[in-house]
Amino acid sequence: MKRPVITLLTDFGLRDHFVGVMKGVILRICPDAMVVDITHDLPPHAVGEAAFLLACAYPYFPAGTVHVAVVDPGVGGARRPIAARCDEQLFVAPDNGILTYAFAEAGRWQAVEIAKPQYRLSSVSATFHGRDVFAPASAHLASGVPLEALGSCVTDPIMLYLPTPAETSQGLEVHIIHVDRFGNLITDLREERLTEWLSGQSAESIVMEAGETRIRGVSRSYDAAPEGRLLAIIGSSGRLEIAINRGHAGNLLRLRSGDTILLRRNE
Amino acid sequence: MKRPVITLLTDFGLRDHFVGVMKGVILRICPDAMVVDITHDLPPHAVGEAAFLLACAYPYFPAGTVHVAVVDPGVGGARRPIAARCDEQLFVAPDNGILTYAFAEAGRWQAVEIAKPQYRLSSVSATFHGRDVFAPASAHLASGVPLEALGSCVTDPIMLYLPTPAETSQGLEVHIIHVDRFGNLITDLREERLTEWLSGQSAESIVMEAGETRIRGVSRSYDAAPEGRLLAIIGSSGRLEIAINRGHAGNLLRLRSGDTILLRRNE
Amino acid sequence: MKRPVITLLTDFGLRDHFVGVMKGVILRICPDAMVVDITHDLPPHAVGEAAFLLACAYPYFPAGTVHVAVVDPGVGGARRPIAARCDEQLFVAPDNGILTYAFAEAGRWQAVEIAKPQYRLSSVSATFHGRDVFAPASAHLASGVPLEALGSCVTDPIMLYLPTPAETSQGLEVHIIHVDRFGNLITDLREERLTEWLSGQSAESIVMEAGETRIRGVSRSYDAAPEGRLLAIIGSSGRLEIAINRGHAGNLLRLRSGDTILLRRNE
Repeated sequence: MKRPVITLLTDFGLRDHFVGVMKGVILRICPDAMVVDITHDLPPHAVGEAAFLLACAYPYFPAGTVHVAVVDPGVGGARRPIAARCDEQLFVAPDNGILTYAFAEAGRWQAVEIAKPQYRLSSVSATFHGRDVFAPASAHLASGVPLEALGSCVTDPIMLYLPTPAETSQGLEVHIIHVDRFGNLITDLREERLTEWLSGQSAESIVMEAGETRIRGVSRSYDAAPEGRLLAIIGSSGRLEIAINRGHAGNLLRLRSGDTILLRRNE
Repeated sequence: MKRPVITLLTDFGLRDHFVGVMKGVILRICPDAMVVDITHDLPPHAVGEAAFLLACAYPYFPAGTVHVAVVDPGVGGARRPIAARCDEQLFVAPDNGILTYAFAEAGRWQAVEIAKPQYRLSSVSATFHGRDVFAPASAHLASGVPLEALGSCVTDPIMLYLPTPAETSQGLEVHIIHVDRFGNLITDLREERLTEWLSGQSAESIVMEAGETRIRGVSRSYDAAPEGRLLAIIGSSGRLEIAINRGHAGNLLRLRSGDTILLRRNE
Repeated sequence: MKRPVITLLTDFGLRDHFVGVMKGVILRICPDAMVVDITHDLPPHAVGEAAFLLACAYPYFPAGTVHVAVVDPGVGGARRPIAARCDEQLFVAPDNGILTYAFAEAGRWQAVEIAKPQYRLSSVSATFHGRDVFAPASAHLASGVPLEALGSCVTDPIMLYLPTPAETSQGLEVHIIHVDRFGNLITDLREERLTEWLSGQSAESIVMEAGETRIRGVSRSYDAAPEGRLLAIIGSSGRLEIAINRGHAGNLLRLRSGDTILLRRNE
């Protein structure tokens, strides 16, 4: 039988015992599970960033993987815990928008509330549903419990507002949705949308206004630019990124998630 | 056969190769082991905090799990390496008090010195017993070597002084024993002890003096308080915690491990 | 059958999804793989430090382990991706010198270019070969694909200049090659070379000049020196290290990788 895979993405950090404990709970229920960390170093309560990274990660996992995403400022309050199936993958998360990118990219999904007590720990704390609700639910799903067994259908999950590029009289306004560890600024402009907008013009002709700076053209690799020089590139998530060859664009430009970059065609 | 589980809790950090190397040593001896990290980001040499986090984590693991806890400022000196059994779990650690909470909570335990050379690496360094002594011992235990085979009985392991709530003429003095990644201040006051002390009064009536601030009542969830407001709550380890809904109580109150909070009944 | 082991050593950090995604890619190709992290917290683009840590780690893994080392500022450019066999272990990395210590210590090695498209993802990005090239190659090797199948032979891999102790009229000049998480300064002086240089004299008689400070003699354990006192010791990689019992030598001495320490025999 194939080994079940469970991934974890949280804002729990690695300083405490939180992530390790979730794995202990999983292994008690599903001893064969292979647990993979996506990240635990999200800024506390950063639901939108979690949603984006989850969508970058899940398509690379085997079909049937269970993805646990817990960034959960509303833990212990009224928000529902949910489980979902989409794109041949399973998801377990608080219903706070963290599955928005996954649902939006897959188009089709099914979700249920995690309600049945037999799929939780016997005692549920007010502050750590990662351990008491989400880890057990993921382990039961990985062990073969059908999604529908967890609780009744949810048709109205919370969805975040997702930024999209906006055409203005000035040009195409795109938005930074994530700054990665290298300082690369990842935008909401996908390669296909860029090609469409260029409508036959060369990518060499674009000018990007990022903060005080202008960048010309889209490079094919980081070292196509001299060391320390700003460049634009189609990154690994298929979106336009602003980067510096061997430097940190986020620090240099003082830009961050939510900020805007303007693209102009050089006409 | 059930897959053996080994957990690791150290102050080795994740910048170096230390933790990875311990896993390599384990897999050479016990290729089927599933190794789970509890944390490696303890402040260097923080034996007391390690002891607390270990006790928060181990009860959630399958029976028979081997827990390796290495915060070991005395490495290479006179302190003994020990292995222990308690609460259906196994432990491998330096004899410096790191098992204090585990032993105290379980009540009953057995310990031996890790002395037999066949359960160590053939060459033992002066500075990295995590690799040379503790990882091999854990892997041999996980492979089925009985505890008693490792060396002779230890009946006097080092035990740390553990803080406990103290009743004074002012009220109940409780102590911060850990500040977690979210800035929550975890105290040594367990829910049962609180209930006993309240002797029938409502938890709503308590006033807590934390630094310059007063907090009234015990909340049921973080978002029972408005965003940014201090609150008290029974946390996931069953102890009283001071927290801020979506904020960092430790930074706001400038309190840390060892500091005191006073509880008064509002009479 | 033995479970295949794959290790990962990168500068990708743990804030993003990069490392998790590599594991997803590996598990799709080789579902039985056990993936172990060496470290992901190398300073961005620190090829030399990566090379050193890899050499500290790999000898402790089971024969046949596949080690993936990706510190890759030249990603997407002209540098070749390579795979290699040395010392009964396999390696997958960009050809930028990251295997220098491994090759130098093993003496004998074979390398090939990772060129065959069937061992990469179907779409290869310009910025994330960890996911698109190195993870798939490692998983195919772990599944039993022979090294030679990946591409043609490489006989001229990039090799870094490795520092070595230099005898001068003043004494023996040794070089710091890594500062670990505890602040210990690891030098390029191996124990055997030190013994040779002492030519019968006692290690007690050496004086080391590190920054403004002098240290006398080589200790046998950290706590052979009083708390807070500088000491020299043979560390876990078999090299001379400067350390402080329960302190951080790097911060105190303001020394770092590349800096020099002078050893004098007290004559």
